[in-house]
Amino acid sequence: MDGIFITFEGGEGAGKTSLLHRISKHLRDQGYDVLATREPGGIEIAEQIRKVILDPANTEMEERTEALLYAASRRQHLIEKVLPALKAGKVVLCDRFIDSSLAYQGHARGLGIDEVFSINQFAIGDCMPDLTLFFDIEPNKGLARIAANKDRERNRLDLENLHFHEQVYDAYHILVKRFPRRIQAINADQPMEAVENEAMDRIVTLLKNKA
Amino acid sequence: MDGIFITFEGGEGAGKTSLLHRISKHLRDQGYDVLATREPGGIEIAEQIRKVILDPANTEMEERTEALLYAASRRQHLIEKVLPALKAGKVVLCDRFIDSSLAYQGHARGLGIDEVFSINQFAIGDCMPDLTLFFDIEPNKGLARIAANKDRERNRLDLENLHFHEQVYDAYHILVKRFPRRIQAINADQPMEAVENEAMDRIVTLLKNKA
Repeated sequence: MDGIFITFEGGEGAGKTSLLHRISKHLRDQGYDVLATREPGGIEIAEQIRKVILDPANTEMEERTEALLYAASRRQHLIEKVLPALKAGKVVLCDRFIDSSLAYQGHARGLGIDEVFSINQFAIGDCMPDLTLFFDIEPNKGLARIAANKDRERNRLDLENLHFHEQVYDAYHILVKRFPRRIQAINADQPMEAVENEAMDRIVTLLKNKA
Repeated sequence: MDGIFITFEGGEGAGKTSLLHRISKHLRDQGYDVLATREPGGIEIAEQIRKVILDPANTEMEERTEALLYAASRRQHLIEKVLPALKAGKVVLCDRFIDSSLAYQGHARGLGIDEVFSINQFAIGDCMPDLTLFFDIEPNKGLARIAANKDRERNRLDLENLHFHEQVYDAYHILVKRFPRRIQAINADQPMEAVENEAMDRIVTLLKNKA
């Protein structure tokens, strides 16, 4: 397994998705072979599972059912897309991974970080990310960014109340303390280019250490 | 929680399904309020999950993905159907439950009984069955019964080779040793009525003890 697995995490409006695309481009310009992905990532089984999760008719979906479905989708995306890329020596950048489940389902929905970790460990085995970047911005500021962006599609989570997003934010800080070697926080409450440079620094340091 | 939760387990051709219907009828005749069910049991979300599992186009489904999907389907069926019936004081008879996952995915597919137990514990919490009847018949005899029954629909598991079914059989014996208070083995290699009488005896004993 020669590739490098990096995940991007944070609350809504932290800028993860834009940053991931810009950083992919930078790395490619520097000659790295990059896979930029997010779950379900075009994997047929994972897409079908996502449809079950997001079906608006399924208003009665229980929280543990949802957490198990996310873990199932994660497993299939990992097996079909992430692992083959890592085996081929690529730099894999993934928008959200295990920590999103720990933060959203484990802490904010109250299922327990340890319990959600255990089903995700079943799903991912020892394929933990080499590095996780947590883009740290207070929820009221992140949500204000989303509100200002008319082009952005609203999803179910954007519509949760501020308290929920504060719970998610607290969870990420708990996770940074729990996994201090793997997760690095980056101040995302600064101009995009500054955040991007900081993220690139961390990634390039890792890539040089591994080389 | 005043109801009683009883699960029926065993390999293919053990007669579980027919026995469950006959026993439901007996119990109803004796005045018990009975829910006879099996996953996904008409629960919309669980039915959708089952469709993903059984979709013949999904030949690439990985074993852990499958185990997580079964656990998700189990959770939703439990929440929407089993728990309300138990709260209403019913006798719930369920055709296959956690032990099927432990036997088929945990042991026969080699994922590990402990690991599959842990995701199923996440799914069911402390809602373990009060009694599990294991209908014990050697796989070659069970499969011969199926082959003789032209009306029975073949499913994907019927088509697995004999070695797989022997692994499932071994697994149930491991589970009987591991959960000696909950799981009771019944010799299913005898005429249907004899098996039925033995199963009824165990159930009636439990119901009288709980009353």
